[in-house]
Amino acid sequence: MKINHNYLNLKESYLFSLIAKKVNDYKQQNPEKNVIRLGIGDVTLPLVPAVLGAMHNAVSEMGSPHTFKGYGEEQGYSFLRQAVCDYYARKGVMLDKSEVFISDGAKSDLGNILDIFDADNTVIIPDPVYPVYVDTNIMAGRKIIFINGSVENNFLPLPDEKTKGDIVYICSPNNPTGAVYTKEQLKIWVDWALERQAVILFDSAYEAYIRDENLPTSVYQIPGAEKCAIEFCSFSKTAGFTGTRCGYTVIPQALVRTNVPLNKLWLRRQTTKFNGVPYIVQRGAEAVFTEIGFLQVKEQIRYYLENACIMADTLNELGIWFTGGKNSPYIWLKCPNNMSSWEFFDFLLNRCSVVGTPGAGFGDNGEGFFRLTAFGNKGNVVEAMERIRKVLI
Amino acid sequence: MKINHNYLNLKESYLFSLIAKKVNDYKQQNPEKNVIRLGIGDVTLPLVPAVLGAMHNAVSEMGSPHTFKGYGEEQGYSFLRQAVCDYYARKGVMLDKSEVFISDGAKSDLGNILDIFDADNTVIIPDPVYPVYVDTNIMAGRKIIFINGSVENNFLPLPDEKTKGDIVYICSPNNPTGAVYTKEQLKIWVDWALERQAVILFDSAYEAYIRDENLPTSVYQIPGAEKCAIEFCSFSKTAGFTGTRCGYTVIPQALVRTNVPLNKLWLRRQTTKFNGVPYIVQRGAEAVFTEIGFLQVKEQIRYYLENACIMADTLNELGIWFTGGKNSPYIWLKCPNNMSSWEFFDFLLNRCSVVGTPGAGFGDNGEGFFRLTAFGNKGNVVEAMERIRKVLI
Repeated sequence: MKINHNYLNLKESYLFSLIAKKVNDYKQQNPEKNVIRLGIGDVTLPLVPAVLGAMHNAVSEMGSPHTFKGYGEEQGYSFLRQAVCDYYARKGVMLDKSEVFISDGAKSDLGNILDIFDADNTVIIPDPVYPVYVDTNIMAGRKIIFINGSVENNFLPLPDEKTKGDIVYICSPNNPTGAVYTKEQLKIWVDWALERQAVILFDSAYEAYIRDENLPTSVYQIPGAEKCAIEFCSFSKTAGFTGTRCGYTVIPQALVRTNVPLNKLWLRRQTTKFNGVPYIVQRGAEAVFTEIGFLQVKEQIRYYLENACIMADTLNELGIWFTGGKNSPYIWLKCPNNMSSWEFFDFLLNRCSVVGTPGAGFGDNGEGFFRLTAFGNKGNVVEAMERIRKVLI
Repeated sequence: MKINHNYLNLKESYLFSLIAKKVNDYKQQNPEKNVIRLGIGDVTLPLVPAVLGAMHNAVSEMGSPHTFKGYGEEQGYSFLRQAVCDYYARKGVMLDKSEVFISDGAKSDLGNILDIFDADNTVIIPDPVYPVYVDTNIMAGRKIIFINGSVENNFLPLPDEKTKGDIVYICSPNNPTGAVYTKEQLKIWVDWALERQAVILFDSAYEAYIRDENLPTSVYQIPGAEKCAIEFCSFSKTAGFTGTRCGYTVIPQALVRTNVPLNKLWLRRQTTKFNGVPYIVQRGAEAVFTEIGFLQVKEQIRYYLENACIMADTLNELGIWFTGGKNSPYIWLKCPNNMSSWEFFDFLLNRCSVVGTPGAGFGDNGEGFFRLTAFGNKGNVVEAMERIRKVLI
């Protein structure tokens, strides 16, 4: 029996284990210090009442033979797919229910979607990047080309006439940089993909954080994207579903390659290798789109964005270059005084008892940068910024 | 961009859509008839009180900042993995928590596990078979060899000196045949795999239906299996989780190929392409293993097995050959009077208003056979058997 030898080419990531070790060591040596974590990529606010109510109801339904639900459609219940369509309609994007697939999260589908593509494709991935894009392609042995994010392009790389590839990942608002493509910039990617018959894998997991009405919250707001893009979204950061697990993937019927609709391939993949998301969870997700549910999750997002705003204000005051923070829960900053990512990590930890994430963990171009996240408690964010201001001003 | 061309080799299955069409036509022509379905592979009894209580509690926990759960470990919460270990310990199988991975169902993991194997492996699949084994391997372009189930071997095929392959699927109790391997028979497969360094993918989704204490409920009850087998189990048929979605996969640390522990490869796959099962669902699954929860689900299994027993009694009375029905919710019968699978389907529908599943839908060797399932209502099962007895006696 031969193992998938591509797995042996994966690099072990020691990013988060090294962070944990350094923080633990620091805490042991400084037990009196109140360490504030601005590095976590997980939400902290509980599920909103509308979602909780819907899930309690659904659990009760599962207890009666008249309302019990067994196997559902692998692609998700019609009620939730319709709610997603209605949400997109409010963005000016008209979808058919058959174009929406309910998933257990964007991460799963971003990995599993690769099943429908040949291993012999060249993949374009921005650097810095969410590491899952890279690892899932290494696992399949695909050729990867990195496209550079930098201060010069505000970490929003664009293709030029030399950019060649078959599949490209775009995450906007971006993790880790918080940068958001404009419609004009996204159009450059869409036109590029249309010309080359490439496919854009568009990760819109943070779209709900966009407050600027001129910025696109879906790739399908760009004409022609329905012929070249698959969009992945999630309730994780929109509604605090990181431990509840639900997302959705959109594959337009118009997206056809070598005469095969990719929607049909993905449906076949899902009906064969997936059995759908729990009924209880789908009912919870549906509640996110109700009038009251939507107001409740918007309030949580407002809370996180206020944290981002507090951090952004401090960085502006200190004259530190950064992206994100306005339409994103992430802030990506240039380490002051030309410190490396890990030097700044140690500096923040030792001088301020504040923990963030070294940018070097997200790719070569992340060296010298640093990620802060807005998912913490407001009081802690204020306190952390006060400490940072004191040592850097 | 090149699509995965292996998908084009998949056969469309019209089994269940053809059944649905025939039943609908019959109902339209015979609106006065009470059609009884003995073909569904889905449970019908609601979740048990212990599970419902645990899930209500978990939903409430998600509503408080003090008990809210964000991302959990991809391989599942420790409390549930420990509960699985304790369950196995009662079977005499000692597992470490690190050997248990909580999944969203056996179907998902049975498909996704193939990620860790090279495409260049030969797969042995029994015929007749659960179609997912075949399709997931066609998707990856693997070579498939079928091994024949027949009346002669009671639909429990075994390897001989000529059987060559790298990966073999064993489902016991079997879907669709309901046949169960004895320990002696399983030992032949384990010894075969150990000798050839092959890997057994053991689907034990129906293990909870085994009442005969001499029959193995886990492949690890066979010495040496920990060095050659991966086991997939599910709460779907054990506790009615078909719409709640939870299962588990066991990969022993002792299972090593080309110096790589397969457990490590799978952990890497899951942490990269999966984000775990909802907290609420894992708490529900944990409740299945409590004393009261276990009694409650055993009572449901007893109900289904009683249905199977009623069907078996009728078939015995009519002198119809069959497997299953004793330690399985499935009955696999030889169509009487040498009818083909579809002929018998039409016969049952038109003469008895009873719906089952033609065996031909599960592979070439299924032709001339027929599957009945025990997941229906007892009154209906009694009535259906009465009708069948009348026309066949």
